[in-house]
Order: sequence, then C-alpha cells, then structure tokens
Amino acid sequence: MTLQLDELAARLRRVEDELAIRRVVLSYGPAADAGLTQRAGALWAENGEYDWDTARPALVGPAAVAAMLEGRGHQSLISEGVAHFAGPPLVEVDGDHATALSYSFVLRRDAEQQRAYVWRLGAAHWEFERVDDSWRIHRRTHRQLDETGAGRELFGEVLGAGFGEGES
Amino acid sequence: MTLQLDELAARLRRVEDELAIRRVVLSYGPAADAGLTQRAGALWAENGEYDWDTARPALVGPAAVAAMLEGRGHQSLISEGVAHFAGPPLVEVDGDHATALSYSFVLRRDAEQQRAYVWRLGAAHWEFERVDDSWRIHRRTHRQLDETGAGRELFGEVLGAGFGEGES
Amino acid sequence: MTLQLDELAARLRRVEDELAIRRVVLSYGPAADAGLTQRAGALWAENGEYDWDTARPALVGPAAVAAMLEGRGHQSLISEGVAHFAGPPLVEVDGDHATALSYSFVLRRDAEQQRAYVWRLGAAHWEFERVDDSWRIHRRTHRQLDETGAGRELFGEVLGAGFGEGES
Repeated sequence: MTLQLDELAARLRRVEDELAIRRVVLSYGPAADAGLTQRAGALWAENGEYDWDTARPALVGPAAVAAMLEGRGHQSLISEGVAHFAGPPLVEVDGDHATALSYSFVLRRDAEQQRAYVWRLGAAHWEFERVDDSWRIHRRTHRQLDETGAGRELFGEVLGAGFGEGES
Repeated sequence: MTLQLDELAARLRRVEDELAIRRVVLSYGPAADAGLTQRAGALWAENGEYDWDTARPALVGPAAVAAMLEGRGHQSLISEGVAHFAGPPLVEVDGDHATALSYSFVLRRDAEQQRAYVWRLGAAHWEFERVDDSWRIHRRTHRQLDETGAGRELFGEVLGAGFGEGES
Repeated sequence: MTLQLDELAARLRRVEDELAIRRVVLSYGPAADAGLTQRAGALWAENGEYDWDTARPALVGPAAVAAMLEGRGHQSLISEGVAHFAGPPLVEVDGDHATALSYSFVLRRDAEQQRAYVWRLGAAHWEFERVDDSWRIHRRTHRQLDETGAGRELFGEVLGAGFGEGES
C-alpha cells in the first residue's frame, strides 16, 4: 500500500507542477499591465532570460525585466491600456525542469475608435527551473507569427524536438 | 499512513477546487453568447454581484444577471455574433472562498468587413464562495484596460493585496 | 484504507484526464501554425471527424486533416502569419469518452497595417475517445459566431443537452 501511496503522490505532484507552471505563465500579463514591474521581473530566475523578437539581445535577470517595464515604451502602453495576454499553455514537466508553449498576444486600446486591436501576434516558448521549491523562468522566447516565419519556426523547433509527445 | 492519505486528499481537493473555479469562469461566456440567460445567471450566488465598468450600480443575484442578458443590448450583440471571452484564470483557493484574476474580452462580428473586432478589453476579478458543495460567484468586477486606468488599477489592487504570492 | 486509496486514485485519474483533454485541444493550433501537418492530423482518431462551418462535408481521419493543412489555403495563411487559437476549454469526462467546449479564433497578420486581426470568431465542440490509453478527437465541430446564428446554436445545443451541469 505504501507503494501505491508513493505512486499517487508522484502523480499528484506532476499535476500540481503543471498548475504551478501555468500560474507563472499567466502571472506575467496582469503584473506587467498593472505596472507592478518588480513583481513581473521576479518571475525570472536570477540568470533567467527574456528574448523577444530578433532585434535586441535577451534581457537577463529580474532587474533587467523590471527596468524594461519601467521604461518609456512599456509605460506608454499601459497608460493607453494594454493586455499582454498569454494563451492557455501546453506544459511538460521533467523533474526540476519544465517547458511550456503558448500563444502570446499584445492587445492595445485605440481610444479614437473605442476598440482594441491586436498589435503583436506571437509564439512563446517558456523554459522553467525549480528554485527553492518554486518555479522560475529560465528562458522565455517570443517570436512573431508574421511574414518572417519566425514564430512558425519557433513552434516547429519546439514541437519537432519532441515536446508534448506521448503526453495525452 | 492515514496521515499521508489525509494529506494527499487535501492536496487533491485543492486541485479539484482550482479546476472547478476555472469551470465557473469559463462557463459564463458560452452560456451568455448562446442566450441561455438563466444558466448564465445561475453562476452567481443569491446575493452575488456583477459590477462592470463604473457607470452603473452592480447587478445583484442570478435573476438580475439573467434579466440583463435578456435585455435589448445583449440580445442585439448575440444576434450579430459575439464572444464574451474569458482568458485562462489565475485561481487562489482559501477553504470555502476563492479568488480569480483574468483578462476578459468582448469580441464582436463585423459583417461588412467579414471580420471580428475586440470591442472591450477588460481586467476581471472574481470572488467565489462554496455554496452546498458547488462554487458560486460572490462578486465579479470588470474594468476596462483603457486610458482611464481603471483596469490597470483593478489588477494592481488585487495583486498588491497579496493575490497569488507564494503559490508557484 | 484500500477503499480510500481507490477513491483517491479515481479522483486523480479524473483530473489527469481533464488535463490530457485540455492538452489535445491546445495542441492543434501550434502544430497547424507551424506546418506540422501530420502531427496536427494525428490528434484525430482513425475515423474522427473535423466539421467546420457548413459549406463542406466533414474531413474524416488524420490523413484528411493533414492533407487539408498541406493545401494551398492553409499554406498561404501560415506564410503570412496566423494563429489558430483555442481558448481554454471546458472539459467533461465520462469514462473513455469526453467532451469539450471552447472558443476558437483564427487571427491573421496584416503586414501592411503592422497589426493582426480576428478573421474567424468560432464556437467549438470537441468529442474525444480514449484509444490505447491516449485521447483522440472523435469529432470536432466549429461554427461561426456571426449573423447566421450557427455558433450560438452550437453552444446552445451542447449546453442544453446537459454539458457541464453539476460539475462545479
């Protein structure tokens, strides 16, 4: 019976890990859009990277993410109204590491038209590590689903490397 | 071993509660958009409130929510085609109470352009209570992510009050 | 104590099934948008159907879905940039069968405007069967939330048939 208990506990742990990873993915948007820059940055591990699109080098660590969010670009977005929306993630857990795949859209308010519009249509790949019993972002990569093919390639690389196979 | 069983059961209950809360959040849209007004209203507790934007007092109770959905405004929306879309929620459970945070968008069909557009870009805060073993909405608050800052403040207040801290 | 263990195991299995179904729903988009046509098709059971809108007969089986994705229409979409986005699904499991309900949007890149737009605003009904310990699509039905009322009726039929009742 101890064996059965151990097996159940391991399966439950797997489920709890998936829900915890999901929570990290979904936490970035509301924190960033509320201007809680430290809180959004703290989702990253100390040496964790945020790499989006291809024009710039990746940000490294919580302070760099927070500083980006304190910058003029992001502050202007949130004063107009913006949603850094993460779609529901696909999650794969492997011990103290985990990976997720999601869509990631940025929607902005257009005050004149009294509507919002989809400004960025992205593919997102998230890598996590367990640090002191909590999950932190090791690397988050965004690429646009556009005519450059960058987002399409990102989804293709991750899925092609076996992500999610044999999980359903 | 009984202790271990009890601990596993409590952890599993926590997971089941999170999934049940998620189900309530995700149920409103399809019911409302299908015109199932009683069913959508029944997600609220008897004294539960639906407070959106700032122009009007909150609706109170299932019948008031159903009546709003039977009104001309909502019926016009659904005849054209509309999606009251709730993003994947962040959920926090505390015994017989629970809280969720999500984006909440209203997308409408534009028949002339053969497209849809994002009409409302909202922040949503949900409070739940367990009533007779099922979860009902105690209060649902929506604020727009726009130039008024109302949605940004809602996300900020909830996150600033400790929501979601120490959960991942 | 064995009884309690069995009950816990059954409840955990229910949770794991819900997460597995969710995974199938969320897997289609990234695979299709990356052009991994076989992988997207393999989500269907051998005799599984994909029925969208009303103009055409349903596709039947993995090869037919893959062939559709290899066709000119879909290939053109992914070369411009597209997201076949599934919203977070409502899931109901009944032994070796399961059902899900979700919104399903197709967002496309508009290179000239440097924005994306919502091209299709759909209601989706998914039926699953367990095949060799994994979940496959038995039938996936999409209808537009537009002036025809087709999407509204799909949501209404599924919810009216008792989907999701007594689950929260």
